[in-house]
Amino acid sequence: MPTPSMEDYLEKIYQLVEKKGYARAADIADALEVNPSSVTKMIQKLDKDDYLIYERYRGLILTDKGKKVGKKLVERHYVLEEFLRIIGVDDEERVYRDVEGIEHHLSPKSILAIETLVEFLKDHDEIKKMLDDYRKNFEDK
Amino acid sequence: MPTPSMEDYLEKIYQLVEKKGYARAADIADALEVNPSSVTKMIQKLDKDDYLIYERYRGLILTDKGKKVGKKLVERHYVLEEFLRIIGVDDEERVYRDVEGIEHHLSPKSILAIETLVEFLKDHDEIKKMLDDYRKNFEDK
Repeated sequence: MPTPSMEDYLEKIYQLVEKKGYARAADIADALEVNPSSVTKMIQKLDKDDYLIYERYRGLILTDKGKKVGKKLVERHYVLEEFLRIIGVDDEERVYRDVEGIEHHLSPKSILAIETLVEFLKDHDEIKKMLDDYRKNFEDK
Repeated sequence: MPTPSMEDYLEKIYQLVEKKGYARAADIADALEVNPSSVTKMIQKLDKDDYLIYERYRGLILTDKGKKVGKKLVERHYVLEEFLRIIGVDDEERVYRDVEGIEHHLSPKSILAIETLVEFLKDHDEIKKMLDDYRKNFEDK
């Protein structure tokens, strides 16, 4: 796994806050598989850039800016997972790893195009079914 | 741009050989925007791993293994470009950059699923057209 970027941190912090109401450095470190000192450093950077407010021993809260960006990152991750699933990638571990790998490398335009495709397939069961059948033939070749 | 990986090199060397019949270190350096000393180092590594045979002052040739992998990498790149184009990403520079970003982070299973989707859309003009119309509505929202 490459070094988690600022985006990985924000995404994860947002998820933890969503789920538990707060995000502790230890939980962030666990989730991103990094050591707590890296977390502290990044939290300070995120504080400096106004994504969150951090008070030692009191924990952190996301600013409006941090919430907005965090939400977007979580949604992007989710759209990409949905995309891989809907086109037939059925191994959840692989879905997760592939999305972790690509999510920071796609332009907003590409993300929107992928999201549109996902919605299109969700809205058209018969086409989704045709694609599933097509895949069975294609992969057998 | 992140440091080009071994895969980036093999892909580029294969393309250069396809196009011009040979690949010189200077051309590789230009294509990957790295300095010639990095190219020399990577060429030595690729030689050691049996992807190519390199003789100083005489140039390099890809081994069968190198050709096979290089071809696969070029095809993968092309599939991903086709994918972004067919779902509506119409800026060629963006297509290229996004693919450069994601191509080494997708599992073979995901690549195959994407390739299947592309073939499906190419085989079904009417569905491709429906997706285009859907996108116009979706993006206007």
